[in-house]
Amino acid sequence: MGTANGDGATDRDAVREVLEKARAEGRESLTAPEGRRVCEAYGIPTPGEGLAGSAEEAVTLAAELGGPVAMKIVSPDILHKTEAGGVLVDVRGEQAVAQAYEQIVAGARAHDAAAEITGVQVQQMLSGGHEVIIGATTDPTFGKVVVFGLGGVLVEVLKDVTFRLAPVSGGEAISMLDDIAAAEVLKGARGAEPVDRDALAGLIRRLSKLVTDFPQIREFDLNPVFATPGGACAADVRILLEPDEVPEPQRYSQEEILRVMNRLMRPSAVAVVGASAEEGKIGNSVMKNLITGGFAGKIYPINPKADEILGLKAYHSVDEVPGDIDVAVFAVPAKFVPAAVAEVGRNDVPVAVLIPSGFAETGNVALQEEVVATAREHNVRLLGPNIYGYYYTPQNLCATFCTPYDVKGGIALTSQSGGIGMAILGFARTTKMGVSAIVGLGNKSDVDEDDLLTFFESDDDTTCVAMHLEDLKDGRAFFEAARRITRKKPVIVLKAGRTSMGARAASSHTGALAGDDKIYDDILRQSGVVRAPGLAEMLEYARGLPVLPTPKGENVVIITGAGGSGVLLSDACVDNGLTLMEIPPDLDESFRRFIPPFGAAGNPIDITGGEPPATYEATIRLGLEDPRIHALIIGYWHTIVTPPMVFAELTARVVEEARANGINKPVVASLAGDTEVEQASDHLFDHGIVAHPYTTEKPVAVLGAKYRWARSAGLV
Amino acid sequence: MGTANGDGATDRDAVREVLEKARAEGRESLTAPEGRRVCEAYGIPTPGEGLAGSAEEAVTLAAELGGPVAMKIVSPDILHKTEAGGVLVDVRGEQAVAQAYEQIVAGARAHDAAAEITGVQVQQMLSGGHEVIIGATTDPTFGKVVVFGLGGVLVEVLKDVTFRLAPVSGGEAISMLDDIAAAEVLKGARGAEPVDRDALAGLIRRLSKLVTDFPQIREFDLNPVFATPGGACAADVRILLEPDEVPEPQRYSQEEILRVMNRLMRPSAVAVVGASAEEGKIGNSVMKNLITGGFAGKIYPINPKADEILGLKAYHSVDEVPGDIDVAVFAVPAKFVPAAVAEVGRNDVPVAVLIPSGFAETGNVALQEEVVATAREHNVRLLGPNIYGYYYTPQNLCATFCTPYDVKGGIALTSQSGGIGMAILGFARTTKMGVSAIVGLGNKSDVDEDDLLTFFESDDDTTCVAMHLEDLKDGRAFFEAARRITRKKPVIVLKAGRTSMGARAASSHTGALAGDDKIYDDILRQSGVVRAPGLAEMLEYARGLPVLPTPKGENVVIITGAGGSGVLLSDACVDNGLTLMEIPPDLDESFRRFIPPFGAAGNPIDITGGEPPATYEATIRLGLEDPRIHALIIGYWHTIVTPPMVFAELTARVVEEARANGINKPVVASLAGDTEVEQASDHLFDHGIVAHPYTTEKPVAVLGAKYRWARSAGLV
Repeated sequence: MGTANGDGATDRDAVREVLEKARAEGRESLTAPEGRRVCEAYGIPTPGEGLAGSAEEAVTLAAELGGPVAMKIVSPDILHKTEAGGVLVDVRGEQAVAQAYEQIVAGARAHDAAAEITGVQVQQMLSGGHEVIIGATTDPTFGKVVVFGLGGVLVEVLKDVTFRLAPVSGGEAISMLDDIAAAEVLKGARGAEPVDRDALAGLIRRLSKLVTDFPQIREFDLNPVFATPGGACAADVRILLEPDEVPEPQRYSQEEILRVMNRLMRPSAVAVVGASAEEGKIGNSVMKNLITGGFAGKIYPINPKADEILGLKAYHSVDEVPGDIDVAVFAVPAKFVPAAVAEVGRNDVPVAVLIPSGFAETGNVALQEEVVATAREHNVRLLGPNIYGYYYTPQNLCATFCTPYDVKGGIALTSQSGGIGMAILGFARTTKMGVSAIVGLGNKSDVDEDDLLTFFESDDDTTCVAMHLEDLKDGRAFFEAARRITRKKPVIVLKAGRTSMGARAASSHTGALAGDDKIYDDILRQSGVVRAPGLAEMLEYARGLPVLPTPKGENVVIITGAGGSGVLLSDACVDNGLTLMEIPPDLDESFRRFIPPFGAAGNPIDITGGEPPATYEATIRLGLEDPRIHALIIGYWHTIVTPPMVFAELTARVVEEARANGINKPVVASLAGDTEVEQASDHLFDHGIVAHPYTTEKPVAVLGAKYRWARSAGLV
Repeated sequence: MGTANGDGATDRDAVREVLEKARAEGRESLTAPEGRRVCEAYGIPTPGEGLAGSAEEAVTLAAELGGPVAMKIVSPDILHKTEAGGVLVDVRGEQAVAQAYEQIVAGARAHDAAAEITGVQVQQMLSGGHEVIIGATTDPTFGKVVVFGLGGVLVEVLKDVTFRLAPVSGGEAISMLDDIAAAEVLKGARGAEPVDRDALAGLIRRLSKLVTDFPQIREFDLNPVFATPGGACAADVRILLEPDEVPEPQRYSQEEILRVMNRLMRPSAVAVVGASAEEGKIGNSVMKNLITGGFAGKIYPINPKADEILGLKAYHSVDEVPGDIDVAVFAVPAKFVPAAVAEVGRNDVPVAVLIPSGFAETGNVALQEEVVATAREHNVRLLGPNIYGYYYTPQNLCATFCTPYDVKGGIALTSQSGGIGMAILGFARTTKMGVSAIVGLGNKSDVDEDDLLTFFESDDDTTCVAMHLEDLKDGRAFFEAARRITRKKPVIVLKAGRTSMGARAASSHTGALAGDDKIYDDILRQSGVVRAPGLAEMLEYARGLPVLPTPKGENVVIITGAGGSGVLLSDACVDNGLTLMEIPPDLDESFRRFIPPFGAAGNPIDITGGEPPATYEATIRLGLEDPRIHALIIGYWHTIVTPPMVFAELTARVVEEARANGINKPVVASLAGDTEVEQASDHLFDHGIVAHPYTTEKPVAVLGAKYRWARSAGLV
């Protein structure tokens, strides 16, 4: 069945020739022999076959192919082969092949005595092993994606498939085999021999390379592929072509992006186009926030009718401003935006922040297009329109009509929707979340998530990114930026519209296998992003991830004062893909020294409810100091013996001592008790321990998100 | 294939005879012919078969059976039929049957010339349709349960099965067919003809009746059952028997339970055994809480050394107490409990609340057993041991060492774990949750969830119940109590230990199909209980469900000021099984009258962000007044035009006006904005609207939980 490791030689010219012929003939699909030729050119195994002109030739061919064969009449005059008795399957053995040849030819003659008979096609019959589906399709967001799944009911009914952006690496191809629910089947469930995983993965790689090399291939189905212990072979090939050239989206180099983003985020001078002295106007709020937020650079209010606004000299137009401007924040009605964009462009302002609404979101698509065209013409990049503005705390920059925010920290948040932006602000304020940036993206007429990721990747003040998004303008650009930054910093994504499953006109099997969201889900994971299931989770991950050190291994230990919390924390560990460490006997013995005889060592370590602070302290310290343990989950139970704040203070102290000694392990805590546990949780959070009252799930989910990122970045 | 609607006549005597014979012979399994006879007696179709003594008889039999047959040698001397060439399958046609007969007999003779040959068994071969598995097993918690699933990889690898408590009704049996992930397959996916669902459901019912009638049947596998458009037939039957009699758990009648529970919850007199004047002692805390909690009945402190405690006359023993005692709350060390239980029993106290720990939870099982035996002997029911006590607010009763709680309301909460009980108390206090009862169950040596459910069912002060539990002592008693109460009041269950999957010694296929949790999950749902995925959800459902009116239909409408929230709220609706109403044109038109032209009617109804309070008010009022709408989800976006409290007050007012006019629809709200949305959410909650800041998921999840309950109670 050939080597199919994905690295073999490829014959691009052969594929190009087939595709050009089809296009020259105005076809959007390839014939079966053409599909076969394309597969061969990229080393994708298909069943052996040949044409026999006699019974003897048929016997020889069948022997070469080995195993049972299918035999079919080949005649330009016989269209319906089966009706002519021209198809026999599962033919085994010399005698049977010879007989079948004669029978087929006789049948054809009986059907049409005048028919010209070219011969009989003899084709290797595949069977045994498992039928799988491997395909590629062209996604409107991500471009070429490959899909893998088992056949039959698993794909048809359960949609048990997995997607990856093409091309895939060897590791990614292997991960596809493991990513379906029925993965066990291929590993040899029920005592069967496992299939050749390398052969299957190689086939996926080759297909992904093929559609990447030839973007004019719209869809490519190998269905079924027979996966056996000895190899993988595509029994049926179906290829559809793009009727037209596909335009490439506008892209910028990393350098170009960084040049503009650095001026946006760390400006020396900001102009406010439409600045106003009038209370209640957006142009007034923006001015106030820039000033009271503490921005140290120059602020140029632009207003044709004012000479001074909020104590600052105002300019009648951007043209009048004496120095360079890094950012122009717009607070003028939509209709004035195109001319103002042209004006800032003429003055070499590299980026305009378009707060105004009244564009595509209200149906005024033409106005937005006019703005985008004007901006491109004048080399101005656009943030928005239809946004609340943006914050960048390292520069004390609050270029927004919302209220200032000043709790500095490592998390950068972005939102496509203004409502979600407001929720981010409120949540951040109430939890005192340390923030580097909050950015509204709104209509995303130009600057989008990949521009921001490129900046945040380079930004030492940002240690973690959280993004709310409803769609991606350019999924591939996002993927590439995300894959780079997630090697270094966690990126959390709340992808809204998960369930809309937009009605996709899917012309092929592969295309119809999943709604948009499955593709988003798989490819976001492939990019290394941690996906949050909802808004509340996105916010909690954003708050918690920068607080937690990166775990250095998978061994998680639960230490709990409440057996009941221990059970729920264990459930949460399983739900979040965490591994409860099997405690080695010596470590078990060490823990036992600190806990009552009826307490339970093992994992969870149940220190029991009536214990004094010293027991929490000793066990937590042991958990931190033993190098075989990589992360701690603490379940606290409010008692008179160890009140909440006593617990919080001792835990914070022990963790801080350990960190001072170079022991950096993530520690999270669940606090069960009366209302004092709220203050105790806040105290813990302030000291680098992700702690929550009244829930066993939240702290473990945050730890799970940290682990998901650390694994994708290859750190654990 | 026989009628298999589950209502047909049954022949119990035939089954009894088979089972008695097997038991008499000391067997724990039935032979194939015995299994067949048992199936026949309950109308479970099995393949036709017969014994042929000659080739002619075989031909006649095969013709009667119809279709292909399997043929097997029948000989007392041939144990390994296949080795003797004694098995042929898929034999079709007169000639082939006759030949097969001769071949089998010849093969047998060649194998063992001296073998006595009884004849050849001719059995109908089933094929076509779908192979399914139907079985019954004996669960340690729930007793007889039935299972259903499709065969092959779906069961083996994906564990796509569903369980029900036996016996099942017709509706429950049908629900099993729909409850597996691959349900579509049976409905005729890929253009196939659907199977005979009634026949399959009937087979499930009959099997469930059989194992209910004969509890000595431990396991019963029908695997595979062939499900076709024309019927259902069990191709293979496997029955295992209980080696010993199974003892019935201790059960009380509803009347007995209510008599004791009413005295526990609404006592006229409470004795505190181990009452203490000494600060810091549990017997002191309990006394204080009873007094400061405002309990209006008599309180009898019992202490051998005191004459007065906290201003109340104390008694040296229970014997000295002049009047009747309804409850004795114990605050003495564990070792004194047995004697004290005997003492309260002698004084006709019907129930003892055992706060002390030091029993089974610390390994002291013997002491606990002694207490239980003593209590049973003296006709005393026990709550605990190892609990924080209990609260019942309608009686201002705080019989606990924790702090008093006085926010009265309809929700009763119970917990198996003390830690979780403390989390309940803290959460309740911080959210001002209206509570009727909080009860600790601890070691559950006697009183357990079904006793409490029976009381709460009858208690007009309780409108909703939430229970944390790790196991059920008697799953069937719980099921029956839960099924009764959930017809009237929602019951929320947090089942901890979901993922432990305890190592079950499963001797049969059916038994091995799922971990404990899958059985819990299916049977809790069957009982009408709403299962909470975690502690935080249990608490939010408990807080929210009593606040929301019961929906009268499935039409849910989202009204939102933020498009971004609308998308996330829609996702949450799908996640929580809610149906977004398709808005009829006239209603769409009505909504459009209130919103800007670029706003989106449809559902979500996006009124857009810049709208004044009047737009929220008009659209919410319309949503409440139109009788085709059954529930509202509101997405609020904080703006200067409509600040949070303005929104909260207008929404509360509109909803209250509607309720005054008899319009009772559940309304939930998600508030996105700066920190003022927290106060606004509280205001809404206080006015019967489940509202949460910074999350789109929580309010929808609470509405979803209300719907789940309402559907199970047949109210929607």
